[in-house]
Amino acid sequence: MVKLAVDVMGGDHAPDEIIKGVKLALERYSDLEFLLFGDENVIKPHFPNEARVKIVHAPDVIDMGEKDPIGAVRKGRNSSLVRAFQAVRDKEASGVVTAGPTQGVVAAAHLIIRRIKGMKRVALCPTLPELGGKKRFLLDVGANTDLRSEHLLQFAQFASIYAREVAGIERPLVGLLNNGTEPGKGRELEKEAFELLKNDPNVNFYGNVEGKELFTTECDILITDGFTGNLVLKTCEGVAKAVGTFLKTEINTFGKKIGYLFMRKVFKKFKQTLSPDEIGGANLFGVDGIVVKAHGSSDAYAFSNAIKQARLAVLGDVVEKMKSIIGDEEDD
Amino acid sequence: MVKLAVDVMGGDHAPDEIIKGVKLALERYSDLEFLLFGDENVIKPHFPNEARVKIVHAPDVIDMGEKDPIGAVRKGRNSSLVRAFQAVRDKEASGVVTAGPTQGVVAAAHLIIRRIKGMKRVALCPTLPELGGKKRFLLDVGANTDLRSEHLLQFAQFASIYAREVAGIERPLVGLLNNGTEPGKGRELEKEAFELLKNDPNVNFYGNVEGKELFTTECDILITDGFTGNLVLKTCEGVAKAVGTFLKTEINTFGKKIGYLFMRKVFKKFKQTLSPDEIGGANLFGVDGIVVKAHGSSDAYAFSNAIKQARLAVLGDVVEKMKSIIGDEEDD
Repeated sequence: MVKLAVDVMGGDHAPDEIIKGVKLALERYSDLEFLLFGDENVIKPHFPNEARVKIVHAPDVIDMGEKDPIGAVRKGRNSSLVRAFQAVRDKEASGVVTAGPTQGVVAAAHLIIRRIKGMKRVALCPTLPELGGKKRFLLDVGANTDLRSEHLLQFAQFASIYAREVAGIERPLVGLLNNGTEPGKGRELEKEAFELLKNDPNVNFYGNVEGKELFTTECDILITDGFTGNLVLKTCEGVAKAVGTFLKTEINTFGKKIGYLFMRKVFKKFKQTLSPDEIGGANLFGVDGIVVKAHGSSDAYAFSNAIKQARLAVLGDVVEKMKSIIGDEEDD
Repeated sequence: MVKLAVDVMGGDHAPDEIIKGVKLALERYSDLEFLLFGDENVIKPHFPNEARVKIVHAPDVIDMGEKDPIGAVRKGRNSSLVRAFQAVRDKEASGVVTAGPTQGVVAAAHLIIRRIKGMKRVALCPTLPELGGKKRFLLDVGANTDLRSEHLLQFAQFASIYAREVAGIERPLVGLLNNGTEPGKGRELEKEAFELLKNDPNVNFYGNVEGKELFTTECDILITDGFTGNLVLKTCEGVAKAVGTFLKTEINTFGKKIGYLFMRKVFKKFKQTLSPDEIGGANLFGVDGIVVKAHGSSDAYAFSNAIKQARLAVLGDVVEKMKSIIGDEEDD
């Protein structure tokens, strides 16, 4: 059985959609067991005779707009988020799924579960919008703004294991986001990371990848620092947001209006695909347990997909495989 | 009269489209005079009795794919690009327009024209794709990968003068690209730049702007380092490139196919708008003269627009106005 902790109170549509998402996952996967953290009075009536669910009363909520996530995690002893992460730390669950605030999740992962020995930073890793018809992982997208090249190497190693064990890509191809394709491009960070990635036996390195190849590159994994990753991911969202304005200006003839009527759904899908709401769960790589951060606005289906992702990561034994690569490197 | 130097041999469609672009500009603006640098034998027949054109024989070309632009500029004594930049240095022309390779242009600006005293870095500043129906300037997009906060401040000052004098925006609103909107977000670079921008009397500072607001923010100018700016701009191009693949997958019913027929032009426009080919000329801010880098693939019309841009910058006296802000700051 795969045992997962769920933060029932985190997310824009918590607890209702989270509860529904858990129910959906119970139907979809018979090997799942849950520890649900949240308001017992709200949760209990939904699972009257469910042997695979255990409810732990932890009614406090860390707000989605929390300005001081680290403080909130330190102080929030009875918050559903903190308690769910503690369950992973205490090995009561193999992973945690939450739609709570991103920086709260990053803080809880650091402070409660803690990093794998030798893993120097954590990374937030979503899949890119599947515009080009291929799944691609992008990391880091915001867990760390300042990174060194050895951190990028560890991210590449971790994501390679994940892509192999969870997405079933035998030799995942890793690209380094850069401002040009030639070796030697980029900041010191990219120049150093290029050499490390090129020479690492655990990484199938492609080389540099430019922003314009984001959805067409043959790479399965794209590596960058958390600041750049955030800007790149959000720029996609920015384009999606502007599509409506663009169409309003351009659909100025009768023919185009007719065409638009037939194609409304295509545009909606385009905007959705580029929106982070649709990207599903982002993995937090680097701590000693599986952490999946579902998007804040997750509905039941999206949340059940985030659960599915955590389940696959547990079954793929991703964390233990990363530990064996890191070996006994010094922590810092 | 406004006197501009033109690199006739630079660009994917040089010299033909460049020559046509100059002709177009001569028709459009009666106050323009040109110094044309390139192969005299090719250029001369096109301007038999043109008093406003002087041709200088400089037939060598710096290749669009040149791997060592600095070396090429140093060695390319009779290249059209180098000679055109020398004309600005020697005050024979007030500005230069070229569709040559970006890094060659940056190198020539640095090595030949040189920076304004006190201006610590140069920046490449295009306008963002006009998806949201508003002109926005983004800088730096690739002249410098590593920058300090005081460089970002100077870019903001320079772009503010430009936006006022050339685009006619009275109090241009300046945003700092960042991974969140709250003050205190970002790397050390952004945290420091935020304080400098907030307190500078020459800058009308809005605050932090996220990637998702790129085409919807009320800001006229967006400031970032050259690495991030390059990735952001190229990500827009990446989305444009993927639109075709996306449509192929999604247009799977008869109705959608009909709709697509009516809307083909809208899609084409969307792709074009997001493509750097359509962005027109990028300004190079920071050197002692006007430099406009037209896109490599410029046709005659695009090149004449880059000329128009250089003309406006000369008439707006942008460089002298920046000098008066910088005063006698120490160079480094």
